[in-house]
Amino acid sequence: MTDPSETLDAHVLPVVRLRPKANARAIRHGFPWVYADELVVDRRTRGLAPGAMAVLQDAERADLGVVTVNVNSKIVARVMDQDANATIDRAWLAGRLRRALAMRERLFDAPFYRLVHAEADGLPGVVIDRFGDAAVIQPNAAWADRMLPDLAGALAEVTGVSTVVMNGSGRARGLEGLDERTEVLTGGVPAPIEVPMNGATYLADLTGGQKTGLFYDQRPNHAFAQRLSRGARVLDVFSHVGGFGLAALAGGAESATCVDGSAAALSLAQGGARAMGLEGRLTTRQGDAFAAMEAMAAEGQRFDVVICDPPAFAPAKQALEAGLRAYERIARLAAPLVAPGGYLCLCSCSHAADLTAFRNASARGIGRGGRRMQLIHTGFAGPDHPMLPQLAESGYLKSLFFRLDG
Amino acid sequence: MTDPSETLDAHVLPVVRLRPKANARAIRHGFPWVYADELVVDRRTRGLAPGAMAVLQDAERADLGVVTVNVNSKIVARVMDQDANATIDRAWLAGRLRRALAMRERLFDAPFYRLVHAEADGLPGVVIDRFGDAAVIQPNAAWADRMLPDLAGALAEVTGVSTVVMNGSGRARGLEGLDERTEVLTGGVPAPIEVPMNGATYLADLTGGQKTGLFYDQRPNHAFAQRLSRGARVLDVFSHVGGFGLAALAGGAESATCVDGSAAALSLAQGGARAMGLEGRLTTRQGDAFAAMEAMAAEGQRFDVVICDPPAFAPAKQALEAGLRAYERIARLAAPLVAPGGYLCLCSCSHAADLTAFRNASARGIGRGGRRMQLIHTGFAGPDHPMLPQLAESGYLKSLFFRLDG
Repeated sequence: MTDPSETLDAHVLPVVRLRPKANARAIRHGFPWVYADELVVDRRTRGLAPGAMAVLQDAERADLGVVTVNVNSKIVARVMDQDANATIDRAWLAGRLRRALAMRERLFDAPFYRLVHAEADGLPGVVIDRFGDAAVIQPNAAWADRMLPDLAGALAEVTGVSTVVMNGSGRARGLEGLDERTEVLTGGVPAPIEVPMNGATYLADLTGGQKTGLFYDQRPNHAFAQRLSRGARVLDVFSHVGGFGLAALAGGAESATCVDGSAAALSLAQGGARAMGLEGRLTTRQGDAFAAMEAMAAEGQRFDVVICDPPAFAPAKQALEAGLRAYERIARLAAPLVAPGGYLCLCSCSHAADLTAFRNASARGIGRGGRRMQLIHTGFAGPDHPMLPQLAESGYLKSLFFRLDG
Repeated sequence: MTDPSETLDAHVLPVVRLRPKANARAIRHGFPWVYADELVVDRRTRGLAPGAMAVLQDAERADLGVVTVNVNSKIVARVMDQDANATIDRAWLAGRLRRALAMRERLFDAPFYRLVHAEADGLPGVVIDRFGDAAVIQPNAAWADRMLPDLAGALAEVTGVSTVVMNGSGRARGLEGLDERTEVLTGGVPAPIEVPMNGATYLADLTGGQKTGLFYDQRPNHAFAQRLSRGARVLDVFSHVGGFGLAALAGGAESATCVDGSAAALSLAQGGARAMGLEGRLTTRQGDAFAAMEAMAAEGQRFDVVICDPPAFAPAKQALEAGLRAYERIARLAAPLVAPGGYLCLCSCSHAADLTAFRNASARGIGRGGRRMQLIHTGFAGPDHPMLPQLAESGYLKSLFFRLDG
């Protein structure tokens, strides 16, 4: 498995060094990032190819571990291994993948999950979603782009998947100075894959869709909404391929209405409903979600369960205030659509909006929408999206379930 | 249903008034409490019997709703109804109970849950737990003590329970100036009741146990621990009647070890395991949990799943620092007991320790216990413990699931 030349390389890794003001203690305690202003960037370091491995030392020249260096990124170094003697090769990658797989196999009945969630799974910047016999890698850090053949090989070896797709789209790669491209590395990608989740069937388009074609992170929140939905009229706003709506139908909802801007996503939602034999209960409405909510309110439409799962309105700190206003507006527009005593689920996938800020914006919006409320459940991303406690930012997803007055 | 004299009383309710500095806007937006320094407490108000109803007005004499007044409490008034013309009688109580019941019946298959969670269910200071055909009322506010016959009557009428117990123990009543007493109001209480939850069987002692005999709040966290426990050796520290341990056994754990200071609680845990036919897989260990963890570490014992669900170490702000140190110590002592790649669940039911503070203390303790970690799940109390978004304090319960290095 181990290529002798790789092993040799590891023994002659260059050294990079923290500035005295950098927080070496945080790194020792598991913080995985070094910011650009914390590292001594001399000519030699600047000469390292993006994604190169190096040994990180503190200002007193004590080893902190093996890092990957990218002088094009604000995160100039990411900790790969706390052991400064580690060799980052295909066998090392396979070890990390096996550890990640063991947790998913314990928690999930079927091989459909996020297998690797970047730093928290010990593979900085790398996201891997598994769809049964296929997997999609998002190598959002330079080292992973360089080691992609090893990573894909280790992935096939550890999981047995026959299809591996590389999805190189999205904002994160730009921040690392990487180009956008998507390619099938091994195997062949069939038409949309049927993904079973919470008793529903979703269609995931691994090469044409947003991100990796399906978002696994909302799984436990889909499940909670499902418990509320038996016999209910359900509205799923920003539905993408029908995440909440199809879960509700699988849970016995009387009807589900999916609203999204993307005709392609809504077509996949319809395909999922067809695969479940429940296409008669699904209505789709393409268009701007804000306008659609206003129109439905004007039409006097009411639903027993309403879910709003918008894109990130506050992806970064600068956008926080505007983002919170947008979340409040969603809550205000959605509240009148909820039948007396019904339920409203509001979601945020914004890093910058923390739980308290998002909850306050949501409660304010519901109040301005003329309703009183209880908060019955707060859900985060599922356990296949672990986080490092040291990196609270990675707890991005929040789903709040309110019950409105009746 | 309505007693004419009650109706008459409601129409001549005394008026109490906010001071100009009080936050009337918060009350209008659903905040349910008035603190002692926010109310004009003149001789007439001081003369109101604890628990009396009154109409609350703002400093400009605009009605804010019906409140219950208790000049013996720091919370001098609690909002009963935003409608200043509301009549707080048995029919009103039945309405609140029906609304609470509708949500529980939608979410739970069997009638075992917290039926009323105080302010968030519109019944200030009142907690009601349901155990099938029996219910336990904790009237932790003076009004509920006064209206107990109406409350018990409405409860029997709405739910059909035949046994109603009044549990008047606990700290909350003291803060309201109420005495401690427990009595069976209607029906008879059998020997410990069998409570089905997450496929496990628990024994709840409604008159002899801590609080109401069983804590329903951890139900979703028991369920998550159960998913981790198939074939596992499980350690449940501060187990009470076996909350996590019995859930793990129901989920196929190889063994469960329950540690608690109370022999009575451990005996109920054993009874539960017997009722499940799994008593051979349960070990109990009575004694101080800290000492037990140190002893087990010294004995070289290791478990695949360890749960620590201690009593509130930081019940109030003054105790926060000491409480966080205690949580850190628990994490430090528990971490070495977790087998490589195993799971550690740490819980806090302290109001004063917020999620971030508790997570940081836990991560620090695990680190000092010599382990690295991912955080795979954060759980709160179940939906039968709703909260008012305006009253974040009521989100007291936090359960963190870590996976440790392997």
